[in-house]
Amino acid sequence: MIMTRQELIDLIRERKSFLCVGLDTDPAKMPEHLRNERDGVFRFNRAIIDATIDACVAYKPNLAFYEALGLEGLRQLKLTMDYIHQLKKPVFTIADAKRGDIGNTSERYAKAFLDPKGDFNFDSMTIAPYMGADSVTPFTVYDGKWVILLALTSNKGAFDFQLTEDRNGTPLYQRVLDTSKQWGNEENMMYVVGATKAEMLDDVRRIVPNSFLLVPGVGAQGGSLEEVCKHGLNKDCGLLVNSSRGIIYASNGMDFADRAGEEARKLQQQMAAVL
Amino acid sequence: MIMTRQELIDLIRERKSFLCVGLDTDPAKMPEHLRNERDGVFRFNRAIIDATIDACVAYKPNLAFYEALGLEGLRQLKLTMDYIHQLKKPVFTIADAKRGDIGNTSERYAKAFLDPKGDFNFDSMTIAPYMGADSVTPFTVYDGKWVILLALTSNKGAFDFQLTEDRNGTPLYQRVLDTSKQWGNEENMMYVVGATKAEMLDDVRRIVPNSFLLVPGVGAQGGSLEEVCKHGLNKDCGLLVNSSRGIIYASNGMDFADRAGEEARKLQQQMAAVL
Repeated sequence: MIMTRQELIDLIRERKSFLCVGLDTDPAKMPEHLRNERDGVFRFNRAIIDATIDACVAYKPNLAFYEALGLEGLRQLKLTMDYIHQLKKPVFTIADAKRGDIGNTSERYAKAFLDPKGDFNFDSMTIAPYMGADSVTPFTVYDGKWVILLALTSNKGAFDFQLTEDRNGTPLYQRVLDTSKQWGNEENMMYVVGATKAEMLDDVRRIVPNSFLLVPGVGAQGGSLEEVCKHGLNKDCGLLVNSSRGIIYASNGMDFADRAGEEARKLQQQMAAVL
Repeated sequence: MIMTRQELIDLIRERKSFLCVGLDTDPAKMPEHLRNERDGVFRFNRAIIDATIDACVAYKPNLAFYEALGLEGLRQLKLTMDYIHQLKKPVFTIADAKRGDIGNTSERYAKAFLDPKGDFNFDSMTIAPYMGADSVTPFTVYDGKWVILLALTSNKGAFDFQLTEDRNGTPLYQRVLDTSKQWGNEENMMYVVGATKAEMLDDVRRIVPNSFLLVPGVGAQGGSLEEVCKHGLNKDCGLLVNSSRGIIYASNGMDFADRAGEEARKLQQQMAAVL
């Protein structure tokens, strides 16, 4: 599908939410009645989507969880994307894939996830910056599609290289933000910025004041929504805040979808208060 | 499958080759008679494998090329891996996947590609280092399997961040090499080091003298085998040199497999002379 920056902003205003629901679907954590059912992963996702769509603006399937299930897992992802595409309600979709390779190879990854004629047709995908310009720009060639570039991630390992300062004292993640402005713009590039270091959002906003930021790590990973908003919001909102485990595994009983909906609405209400 | 460091060294000595054949299989570049045939990608790969296996020690399917074909492409990859696994001749397999994410997600990517019970059961996979320790270590948990960590890649974009010097004048790729020694060892970790900057292999060897290096970029990307050997060989060989397009697309006629075999043998003979 396609969603322009303005359409995304409008959707955020309409739903009074900038919540992204992470579909990190793991059969071992699904309710027992779905675990061994045919298309159980898709059925789980569909129930979560139906229960949360009025409280969120984006879904982010984490590719690893589907790939871990082999070919069958990717079929479940396709079923999920097909379901999202036929919904009457618009929603932004993110392939959390963390891809990136030399130019001719990144072209293929872009085709795999963003091509409107492909099996998945996501609106956007997450990209790792280590290999530089020609590993990122192939993802910007599909009109109306988005690159979401890793800048500062929410894990401990972020400290290994992302905060390494160059000779001028600029940490690598800021260099990534700055350099990437030559590769895309506010209409086709967002950034992953982890919530566990919310005060660093001030530095991020200095470099990319108008860009959308995808913020993982709220909830299970320990980040605070309040802190993220304080440091990350801009005049157009400019944030997509992701929650995965806190929503989709709120219960592993028959009430899992209802409980997921409740957790999503709790976050949505906090977001509405901020907007 | 599983291949220990010593088994890989023995295989290199036996075949007098350290060639890795990159299976970047693109239907548009395949011979016309295979393009629209059922399982054409697999049939192409099988013919390439049969024609090259005596001249090489490794195959490296590039995941992007299979993912670009959707679910069907991944089925072709599975058929290819199933074929390799039933061969009587041992060969090392590399999932060129460039993955890496927070710990619980990297675990899933490891399961997808390395798990002996999974659909693919590769010996190794390529990993991007940007997210640090906990994004890499989950790939080392499968006994006898390998992480191949990106250090210095062969593309232009490598100059964007990989060569950025920190306050002590250490380029990022050297910091990656150095830091990663806490995450693995010579028995479970190799490095991607591009061939287009062969003299930098001297610096690489200072930091990881005994590790295997996977060297892409010989051939189509402009690297020279002679230069790579001069700067990269160690007492156990310590190199896997990849060639993709130069071998698998040597011809797009009916003779494609024969021509691929010839190109592989040319490289193998140069390698035999060096060993």
